[in-house]
Amino acid sequence: MSHTKDRKILVAVDGGDESSYALSWCINNVVDQNFKDTLILLYVKPPRVLYTSLVGTGYLFSNDIVASVEKYGNDVAQVVMEKSKRICKDLKNVKVEMQMEHGDPRDVICQTAEKLNVDMVVMGSHGYGLFKRAFLGSVSNHCSQNVKCPVLIVKRAKSNGGN
Amino acid sequence: MSHTKDRKILVAVDGGDESSYALSWCINNVVDQNFKDTLILLYVKPPRVLYTSLVGTGYLFSNDIVASVEKYGNDVAQVVMEKSKRICKDLKNVKVEMQMEHGDPRDVICQTAEKLNVDMVVMGSHGYGLFKRAFLGSVSNHCSQNVKCPVLIVKRAKSNGGN
Repeated sequence: MSHTKDRKILVAVDGGDESSYALSWCINNVVDQNFKDTLILLYVKPPRVLYTSLVGTGYLFSNDIVASVEKYGNDVAQVVMEKSKRICKDLKNVKVEMQMEHGDPRDVICQTAEKLNVDMVVMGSHGYGLFKRAFLGSVSNHCSQNVKCPVLIVKRAKSNGGN
Repeated sequence: MSHTKDRKILVAVDGGDESSYALSWCINNVVDQNFKDTLILLYVKPPRVLYTSLVGTGYLFSNDIVASVEKYGNDVAQVVMEKSKRICKDLKNVKVEMQMEHGDPRDVICQTAEKLNVDMVVMGSHGYGLFKRAFLGSVSNHCSQNVKCPVLIVKRAKSNGGN
């Protein structure tokens, strides 16, 4: 590699196996520990309406349920962040930043990539599995079309046993 | 980077600016000259029917025209290969292989990636510009969905002046 500036690499994480694999693959194949890359781990908490699919109904009536669902969302975010941090624990000379945002992951990933002026976006191909691709549409497809910098879409090969 | 094996990186080239930029970006940001990566430059010569769009008609009647169009296709292939080779000329410890295939680039890229068991596919986001995306559909979209290994889609940012 002969890049001359420190790079900012945005990795979209969602706690799923494919997103964790994408992060590991990126660390092993793209991140350059000699060049002070910055790795920005972005978790996008989907908007509340999406959580309703988890409780099996289109409507939420009780504040208690709203609060529990909200708490569930925060717990998920916490778990995702911890899991992602663990994957990065052995990195040297690489700054790892965590970022959490709310909204439709498709839009938020594109907006964050632009706002932070990152050099590359990395993501799994089937992200946000909890919320079903059919519901959100393909996040990776949307981002590869709309993000203005290079996008690396990491698919976990079936024959691939690990990281 | 901490990958332990020599990697095979397949780069789809079509002679366009975006594909050349994708190749340069890959060399500067992904290829590791300390690890004996192999760079496979794949040019897919579209099937003859696609050339008809160049002569402004859906049908070709004369063998002479068929022969000229065929020759045009071979000349394009030659130019693409030469241009791609020049981009790679300063690489050290990296094996550069050229490969030319015929067919629908979408299928051929996916099949070649699988056949050669590559570790990564790199391509521009608007490849095969000569033949219009509307005609072929988006090559990069198709490949990012169907190739079984990680796919890097490189878009040339508007603010980006060069390689």
